[in-house]
Amino acid sequence: MASCRHGETLPLRQVEIAGGFWRDKTELIRREVIPYQWRAINDRVEGAEPSWCMRNFRIAGRILRGETERAVKPENEFRPLPADPGRPEATFYGFAFQDSDLFKWLEAAAYSLTQYPDPELERLADGAVDLICAAQREDGYLDTYFTIRDPEGVFTDLRDRHELYCFGHLTEAAVAYWQATGKDRLLNAARRYAGYIAGRIGPGPGQLHGYPGHEIAEMALARLYEATGERAWLELAKFFIDERGRRPYYYDREHPEGAGDPAAERYQYQQAHRPVREQDEAVGHAVRAMYLYSGMADVARLTEDEGLFEACRRLWSDVTGRKMYITGGVGGTVHGEAFSHAYDLPADTAYAETCAAVGLVFWARRMLQYRPDSRYADVMERALYNGVLSGMALDGKSFFYTNPLECVPEDCRRDQRKAHIRLVRQKWFGCACCPPNLARLIGSVGQYAFTRAGDRLYLHLLMDAAVTVDGVRVEVSCGMPWDGAGTIRIRGLERGRRLELALRLPEWTDHFSVDGGTYQDMEDWIARGRAAEEGYLLLELEADRDVPFAFSMPVRFLRANRRVREAAGQLAVARGPIVYCLEEADNGPELHLLRLDPTGPTETERAEICGERIVAVTTAGVREADEPEGALYARHRPEEPTPVRLRWIPYYTWANRGENEMRVWCRSL
Amino acid sequence: MASCRHGETLPLRQVEIAGGFWRDKTELIRREVIPYQWRAINDRVEGAEPSWCMRNFRIAGRILRGETERAVKPENEFRPLPADPGRPEATFYGFAFQDSDLFKWLEAAAYSLTQYPDPELERLADGAVDLICAAQREDGYLDTYFTIRDPEGVFTDLRDRHELYCFGHLTEAAVAYWQATGKDRLLNAARRYAGYIAGRIGPGPGQLHGYPGHEIAEMALARLYEATGERAWLELAKFFIDERGRRPYYYDREHPEGAGDPAAERYQYQQAHRPVREQDEAVGHAVRAMYLYSGMADVARLTEDEGLFEACRRLWSDVTGRKMYITGGVGGTVHGEAFSHAYDLPADTAYAETCAAVGLVFWARRMLQYRPDSRYADVMERALYNGVLSGMALDGKSFFYTNPLECVPEDCRRDQRKAHIRLVRQKWFGCACCPPNLARLIGSVGQYAFTRAGDRLYLHLLMDAAVTVDGVRVEVSCGMPWDGAGTIRIRGLERGRRLELALRLPEWTDHFSVDGGTYQDMEDWIARGRAAEEGYLLLELEADRDVPFAFSMPVRFLRANRRVREAAGQLAVARGPIVYCLEEADNGPELHLLRLDPTGPTETERAEICGERIVAVTTAGVREADEPEGALYARHRPEEPTPVRLRWIPYYTWANRGENEMRVWCRSL
Repeated sequence: MASCRHGETLPLRQVEIAGGFWRDKTELIRREVIPYQWRAINDRVEGAEPSWCMRNFRIAGRILRGETERAVKPENEFRPLPADPGRPEATFYGFAFQDSDLFKWLEAAAYSLTQYPDPELERLADGAVDLICAAQREDGYLDTYFTIRDPEGVFTDLRDRHELYCFGHLTEAAVAYWQATGKDRLLNAARRYAGYIAGRIGPGPGQLHGYPGHEIAEMALARLYEATGERAWLELAKFFIDERGRRPYYYDREHPEGAGDPAAERYQYQQAHRPVREQDEAVGHAVRAMYLYSGMADVARLTEDEGLFEACRRLWSDVTGRKMYITGGVGGTVHGEAFSHAYDLPADTAYAETCAAVGLVFWARRMLQYRPDSRYADVMERALYNGVLSGMALDGKSFFYTNPLECVPEDCRRDQRKAHIRLVRQKWFGCACCPPNLARLIGSVGQYAFTRAGDRLYLHLLMDAAVTVDGVRVEVSCGMPWDGAGTIRIRGLERGRRLELALRLPEWTDHFSVDGGTYQDMEDWIARGRAAEEGYLLLELEADRDVPFAFSMPVRFLRANRRVREAAGQLAVARGPIVYCLEEADNGPELHLLRLDPTGPTETERAEICGERIVAVTTAGVREADEPEGALYARHRPEEPTPVRLRWIPYYTWANRGENEMRVWCRSL
Repeated sequence: MASCRHGETLPLRQVEIAGGFWRDKTELIRREVIPYQWRAINDRVEGAEPSWCMRNFRIAGRILRGETERAVKPENEFRPLPADPGRPEATFYGFAFQDSDLFKWLEAAAYSLTQYPDPELERLADGAVDLICAAQREDGYLDTYFTIRDPEGVFTDLRDRHELYCFGHLTEAAVAYWQATGKDRLLNAARRYAGYIAGRIGPGPGQLHGYPGHEIAEMALARLYEATGERAWLELAKFFIDERGRRPYYYDREHPEGAGDPAAERYQYQQAHRPVREQDEAVGHAVRAMYLYSGMADVARLTEDEGLFEACRRLWSDVTGRKMYITGGVGGTVHGEAFSHAYDLPADTAYAETCAAVGLVFWARRMLQYRPDSRYADVMERALYNGVLSGMALDGKSFFYTNPLECVPEDCRRDQRKAHIRLVRQKWFGCACCPPNLARLIGSVGQYAFTRAGDRLYLHLLMDAAVTVDGVRVEVSCGMPWDGAGTIRIRGLERGRRLELALRLPEWTDHFSVDGGTYQDMEDWIARGRAAEEGYLLLELEADRDVPFAFSMPVRFLRANRRVREAAGQLAVARGPIVYCLEEADNGPELHLLRLDPTGPTETERAEICGERIVAVTTAGVREADEPEGALYARHRPEEPTPVRLRWIPYYTWANRGENEMRVWCRSL
């Protein structure tokens, strides 16, 4: 009874995050993050690096209107430049991709406006749209970096200068803002810019056969196609995907120096080392990889390209089977912010960029859309509750770029190998990709929790939400992520109509009750005559009713595959979708002296960290004796370490009580 | 009964390495390493980077004689430059310190000539001396880098351009060659250069108040003083030591950019962050640190400066108590080839440069000279047999620069964090400091094994050797490092004379027999009326006789101090002074799946690796199941791993059977 129907996301307007955990998070985005980020991109956050983002748009607009002369082209084009006090009005400041900060803010604002009407926010956003449109050239081109600094350089460096990346974010924002407000000014700007690109880049003889150095345009174009029905955009997305990695390498024309070995970082960094359909190992910059794979899954679905989806599946296996942290973080190494090789998952030097975990959620949702399988949703949930949320402080006011699984402050301060690790979240970054990425994901979380395929509504993630599908209201109420029990209420299902719920059986449960019965596992469910598909429990509904559910949520001790050298002999603690960690604040310093006893008793308790309501876990363990004055090397003698209780808190809540030691993996007795 | 008499080394001519392990090693140096390195510095090793070292001397000589015009000053002074085909004769090639390669070769040749007369080698060495002398300016200055490239730059960059470093190696070679051959031509050249330096640098008002960026001149000047009795050289050494780290920083005058925080790498790198007497933590470049501390110990001894020695003791405690690998390797991080912070001793990214272990041996001997204490000799022995010897292949034909304690070839190839790790030893290096440093240390090992203080002969290291002290011959025969038993024969001790042997009680023994009795430990020895001092067993001899000894040599399981996070829960294996490792060649791949059972039976057996006679160790253990296809994360279940025998080989013999996995630390059951 396998179905090949693809899934579609629900318009955000039809998903109300009604309460509980995710209501708190989306409220935080609305109340704190969006206003804060607005101040940041307008250079109004004290003590934070100025963004210059909004000023760049203003300057570009003035240049286009002939009100300002263009500054000379600076020598080093890749470094953020300080504002030139001599001619402040003609200088571009920041990274080549600085424009994207405003686009991401606008996208997040759009999601917020969908759920929480706010005239003041909409006024700001409308102003931002005006500013963007004023910086668009007559021919449709829109990029302040090139307009201000180097108009002749347009599309001469697709690899490194992020024009198509900024275009992608512009387009995401434009569709979201149109869906939120019905206003199509930015959507039309994006369409005009897309048209300009499609004219310059493509398979034609006079065209550039290039593709984005930093992917995202692929999924943005797919989205633009879905929003407008204009097939040109899907074709451009497909062109980018098909062209990537073909030989002769397009980037070798742009950057002839160093051309050669396809295994070299220069190709792998952008996943351009070989055609994407031939790729089976995730390499290079992790965020780029996630965005590419997301775009591939979109194009596979929209063009019914099973071969392309197969490539996605192989890459998925590689990422989630060999290269993903237990938190859903991806990208093990700071060198190139990249995937390391299989099973190389160091805890203390992990890069695990917040944006990469966000990207993994994007990709997982698209895999689910192509062909639902609860394993994609398991990963999506893991990343969302752990490696994504850890990127933001509980008060929404500071952010992590990297998300290590072990932190010893003294170590990070003194060891240059950990120079990329921050001990507490930062207000803002010169390269501020992560904070607004969090805002746009959390603000649209409803599009990840639910998809539909015909009459079937998929509940990938359980959360307090009210979903409306063809006039039928499906209300979920539950205590996730702390409690796996709740109710699904169906209202408005008229006689003769049919709605099928596909409820994911999460990987973390031991047994479950759904719709009156209690089951050991999927096998039991099926053996007792219930329908299922790829890890989803199917419930056929023909009238309004309430479906109670309860997924058991035991404390689990998890180990890594034994190929993961860095986790050998260690265990992690999880409960439901939440991965836990030990913090010095609860367990004292020198956390590596602790050992977990997985045979001892465990307890859970409701607790609070900085106002965040959580469930804390306590397990049995021991603490080995510290010996700061002891010999560096000594004969081994059997010893009796001191029994202790280990207190575990959700990983995403770490580093909210100041600098302190943390670790996810704990040596096992 | 503490004695304050300082020790002195024995003239190498009076120490005959008579047989056994060290005879094999010194023979290897004579037969393989010295000829090989001669070819290397003469650019005659196929496939190796050309050294250009000898050519630089020839070019400098021609320039000084007016036969060649000086090449223009190249732009980048710190990078090795390829030879300029247009004017090959006027170009300096290589690092600023390239001269030192010849000096180190000459020093090693001198030691060899002392023990193995060889007219052909002496002819080559004499020719090299001529070449060096021809490159000396009339005013005594001698450095081909500046003579060829930048004569006006002399002493303008003491921090980075290694003039005083090259001077130090010149002086070491000059004294050694004079002691070996009685020829004083190079000695006089060194004295003239020293005189030039003492004129330009010093405390006087018109002088530079500088000091070496890379230390070694301090100990070289002390040696020159001891060889010539000329006090000026000791005073210059003392000036360098006293001036280092004083404020205002001398280097800030040379390099005003970036001056500031004393904790910054720019000062710590050269141990110039504060005056040396105030230093109590080893920081910065590890080789530099070892050389500085060696020079400090020399100057402390020669000037009776107890305060300076106290600084050495504090630094010794920090290095050997908190920052030394179990192999005696030092310098935990590739960043700045430097000491990391206390207890930060990662196995797989270890730098542990061969030269730094060599330097630790230099320093330990000098600590022993100031005031004997068996703990210094324990460390000296540990470094010598492990972190030093691992730098050279068993056939003497290739070398390691870095010496990790764990190696997974795939990891090193793919992980840029391990880019400094080599999987097999290399033929030669662009920066070829380590190979000749090994040659000069091993060639003079007799000066480390024995020192004297008046009538007392210290036996710091047991080896097959015959030592002559004031006409008395002391012959040691034993099976070290594999067997701790042997005999000391005294011959030629006339009536009425007295010789005291100070025999180190090594840290690695469990019980011992010496001179007829059997003892549990030092306490037992003293309780039974025998004399001892600072870890040395004292034997008063008044006539010729044989002293049998036997130090038990159990297989030891060692753990690191619990502050060493990287070794938590792991054990190392040692026997006598030898630290062992597991290699894939003996134990299969995925060595991290092995766990050592320290309660199980162990065996030792005589074996061979590539012709090297060793004792291999076999211990009990288990191998956890590999699961290349398993899930990345899974519920923990108690499991029964497979019992296996673990085969351990001496660490210094690793990587002689091709690329393969290796590890020193093994998880314990």
